[in-house]
Amino acid sequence: MQKEYLLVTGAAGFIGSAVAAHFLKLGFAVITIDNLSTGKREVIPEDVIFIEGDAGNAFTVKELEQFDISGIIHIAGQSSGEVSFEDPEYDLRSNTNSTLLLLDYAKRKRIKQFVFASTMSVYGNQHFLPVTENTIPNPVSFYAVGKLASENYMRIFSKFGISSIALRLFNVYGPGQNMDNLKQGMLSIYMAQAIHSNEITVKGSLDRFRDFIYINDVVNAFEKAFSKTKEDGIFEIYNVCSGAKTHVRELLELIVKHSQSSIKVNVIEGTPGDQFGIFGSPWRVNVDLNWRATVELKDGLEQMMKWAIKQ
Amino acid sequence: MQKEYLLVTGAAGFIGSAVAAHFLKLGFAVITIDNLSTGKREVIPEDVIFIEGDAGNAFTVKELEQFDISGIIHIAGQSSGEVSFEDPEYDLRSNTNSTLLLLDYAKRKRIKQFVFASTMSVYGNQHFLPVTENTIPNPVSFYAVGKLASENYMRIFSKFGISSIALRLFNVYGPGQNMDNLKQGMLSIYMAQAIHSNEITVKGSLDRFRDFIYINDVVNAFEKAFSKTKEDGIFEIYNVCSGAKTHVRELLELIVKHSQSSIKVNVIEGTPGDQFGIFGSPWRVNVDLNWRATVELKDGLEQMMKWAIKQ
Repeated sequence: MQKEYLLVTGAAGFIGSAVAAHFLKLGFAVITIDNLSTGKREVIPEDVIFIEGDAGNAFTVKELEQFDISGIIHIAGQSSGEVSFEDPEYDLRSNTNSTLLLLDYAKRKRIKQFVFASTMSVYGNQHFLPVTENTIPNPVSFYAVGKLASENYMRIFSKFGISSIALRLFNVYGPGQNMDNLKQGMLSIYMAQAIHSNEITVKGSLDRFRDFIYINDVVNAFEKAFSKTKEDGIFEIYNVCSGAKTHVRELLELIVKHSQSSIKVNVIEGTPGDQFGIFGSPWRVNVDLNWRATVELKDGLEQMMKWAIKQ
Repeated sequence: MQKEYLLVTGAAGFIGSAVAAHFLKLGFAVITIDNLSTGKREVIPEDVIFIEGDAGNAFTVKELEQFDISGIIHIAGQSSGEVSFEDPEYDLRSNTNSTLLLLDYAKRKRIKQFVFASTMSVYGNQHFLPVTENTIPNPVSFYAVGKLASENYMRIFSKFGISSIALRLFNVYGPGQNMDNLKQGMLSIYMAQAIHSNEITVKGSLDRFRDFIYINDVVNAFEKAFSKTKEDGIFEIYNVCSGAKTHVRELLELIVKHSQSSIKVNVIEGTPGDQFGIFGSPWRVNVDLNWRATVELKDGLEQMMKWAIKQ
């Protein structure tokens, strides 16, 4: 039997790579687009067809014309709120124009399934927590503005018969995360510092809090969301979170506990557009997709630490 | 005394032209950027310094470096929801990248006042009417997605000391409106048809409804908003609307009444992304800016009809 082609953008990155590997295992032929700006070529799973280029560039997307793709999972994009302040125009192109180009491609090729890696950043700072999909977005970084605009494009294209789901990912962590990039991933940043220098510099208060979600749970959410897009003309938004509120202080304690030596913690000024505290309600995705987080932070962090020390 | 320089983008268009003329009268030296894509050169008020180009293009915005501008009123942009479906990428560049470039310019030049022409389109279709600034946006056109993203950029830049106000304009009408563009402006489209062919083709149901606001009232809202941005680091959103709900049917009756001959009305299928019915609450802007609509539709329409027949 011929395999179905699936496009998973960003397979040279942490989440894209894990999602691509998973769909390969499920029997799909996986194609990826990645510009290797932060991703690494060696992270792309074997057997994935690799188109090198920016998904926000029409020329790159044109290269897809040769394939008969049945679905798109769009994960590629500049992924740091902090970095989005350095070049907002690039951020808009990589996170928003890419979605527009891929949706337009899907429309022309009658591709009916589209899943998008959105972000909890769209909520910004909120008074009422946990945030639900019904909370009014209040983006405080360029990154978040662009992701939110992408969701809105999906809503429009769902009227053209493209079933779309935006997964608002909270703080994803786990083995495979880029341990060299100190501007992306709160948990991996702290862990990398603990391993390499026995000293963690925290940008912003220890009283801040987050909702951490393990990579395997996230991959599972993409699988369930992709199945759901078989339904006609839907547009859905789901929080992909654990629902647990973890203070930066508690996170540091866990990292220190699993470290092999003593760790010094320095607290310095926060980064622009950083959210003070957020955690989400996973209720909607649980009801609709029967998905829930299965890995607790203490266990996931232990797994990741073992993996990270071996790197 | 030397005049203050003010940038009013889009002065070759209906609203931009009226706003530019008003601020000239208030004593400002007015500069404009316009790409003349739908605007007309002869509409730009005399004495306005004209930079021809797209405000969504970095090269055009660079031409502003020579001026010492004290405030920006950003009105330029592709302004038709219907047209945004023909070229979504252009729409994103003209309505969103332009805002980003101008805000970035303002930040570099320490310009502290920024007023933006947003749109009631960001609300899309809503169950609870009238819409307030607290209603969750639900954009159903590319045009609306881009305008909403621009508002969000303004929120971020207000943290950098740029006081920003987004005016969500409802259905603006009045003398000066482009009577040749049949894809922009519900009232002007119907009126132009009535005058030129004694026959009005309505795209969509007569039961649809809108909130019409006269151009002079809108100009006044820009003046009040601009004054308000003298306050430090604010970010505000205001509905600029009358608060009155007018059905398409009633609007047509008014136009027919003021026409000099009998008019035939044809109803055909609606356009993509068209909102069924919307009207707004002008309460917030009334409380904060002491602004309210002063011209009733029947009077404004009569004024406009007299003007239009003379064209």
